[in-house]
Amino acid sequence: MQKLTVFFVSDHTGVTAEAVGHSLLSQFRELEYRPLTVPFVDTPEKVEALAARVRAAMPAVIVSTLTDPRIRLKLRDCEAPVFDVFDAFSEPLGAVLDMAPTASSGQFHGMGNSYHVRIEAVNFALAVDDGLNPDRLGEADLILVGVSRAGKTPVSIYLALQYGKKAANYPLTPEDLGAHTLPPVLLAHREKLRGLTLSPERLAQIRNERLPNSRYASLENCRSEIQAAEGMLAASGVPTIDTTRRSVEEIAAMIVHGG
Amino acid sequence: MQKLTVFFVSDHTGVTAEAVGHSLLSQFRELEYRPLTVPFVDTPEKVEALAARVRAAMPAVIVSTLTDPRIRLKLRDCEAPVFDVFDAFSEPLGAVLDMAPTASSGQFHGMGNSYHVRIEAVNFALAVDDGLNPDRLGEADLILVGVSRAGKTPVSIYLALQYGKKAANYPLTPEDLGAHTLPPVLLAHREKLRGLTLSPERLAQIRNERLPNSRYASLENCRSEIQAAEGMLAASGVPTIDTTRRSVEEIAAMIVHGG
Repeated sequence: MQKLTVFFVSDHTGVTAEAVGHSLLSQFRELEYRPLTVPFVDTPEKVEALAARVRAAMPAVIVSTLTDPRIRLKLRDCEAPVFDVFDAFSEPLGAVLDMAPTASSGQFHGMGNSYHVRIEAVNFALAVDDGLNPDRLGEADLILVGVSRAGKTPVSIYLALQYGKKAANYPLTPEDLGAHTLPPVLLAHREKLRGLTLSPERLAQIRNERLPNSRYASLENCRSEIQAAEGMLAASGVPTIDTTRRSVEEIAAMIVHGG
Repeated sequence: MQKLTVFFVSDHTGVTAEAVGHSLLSQFRELEYRPLTVPFVDTPEKVEALAARVRAAMPAVIVSTLTDPRIRLKLRDCEAPVFDVFDAFSEPLGAVLDMAPTASSGQFHGMGNSYHVRIEAVNFALAVDDGLNPDRLGEADLILVGVSRAGKTPVSIYLALQYGKKAANYPLTPEDLGAHTLPPVLLAHREKLRGLTLSPERLAQIRNERLPNSRYASLENCRSEIQAAEGMLAASGVPTIDTTRRSVEEIAAMIVHGG
């Protein structure tokens, strides 16, 4: 049998349909499938074009997030099984709320904060990345603190893009670590501080990718830097997350929701 | 009546539950609700703690993405209506595939590419941002080209984080624009180039936020830069997107899916 094609269909970017679809399909471990995202399907003509592609790709399944019920109905032309989030939930949710759903194509999809706020936050994260412009720490919602290569930069950018949080990040240098207390520039914003730490073994691995066989990357140095950093963070009561086995998304969610 | 609380519940970050929930709820325009995300709900004990919070917050509704059916079943203790993506789709999808779903908590949620690839791509995007390190353009999957402040940086970072694409970005300087053809360093990678453009009015607005009342931000200068840039991109056959009314996510989806 030909390999299954799974179409992720959306009237917007397709990111939510992809997320829902991949999680559902990951429950079927033996299943191999070809994923194919078709975004911006917001007219009957685009559904017709989609239907031709689906019929040519059989066997196929459609996972979709189409807000307009007329467009959803037209999906039946594809002649493949359809799993649509709005089809499944709009009516029962309307019954619970005692309200009628209105079609609102792409009105809200994906990220949770206003667009302008998120872009501002990204620009902020880049401007204060890696300890740059410490005079702007006062503007930050959060300040990520940790040793070099503890994963602060991707987390601060993700906090900005996904959550609209202005996250600065400040690397604890060997000089900072020798001082046995967090730098005054950080202590002035103590309630905004969030520590990131990780296992010395993982840190050494990451640093070795950058500067192989350096003192900087040695396990001994990583161990002593992390011990000093964790000590300083704990002494100042800074909530600290161990990032060793966690993804950027997980770390960001823990920071935002206090997990 | 007290305002409705909507709990977004997940055994992972909650980002997918938030996206699904907010889109569903945006169909009910008059509805005001208090959103509350509870991530990492992956044990019966955590459901019990959640149930106490839900009962204290009534009236409440739960939108969830819980992969483990035992945990989902325990959600009933919350005594609020539950709309769960796996509850709705796992069985019917299994019937279509003729396979039984297995519980796989947080196995795949959210973003579509392997973690390491995405983090590498973010580091790459930062290293080559704004025309830095042009010798590394050969490593790029894509090179975003446009005038200063056309929105290249957030798009390249989003392409990296969401899609694992190594996206460089190259700003066309006034000198480049005077040459009437794209710089040789870009033409060497013509098939990777993607143009970003926008309306002169919007560009002037963005630049005025940065450098108010400058020649750089003047409508006249923006108009002439954009005209020159669009001409050069078109002459070299570079697919170009008008970003004026589009979000970073939309632009990225169009680039990735060729929309």
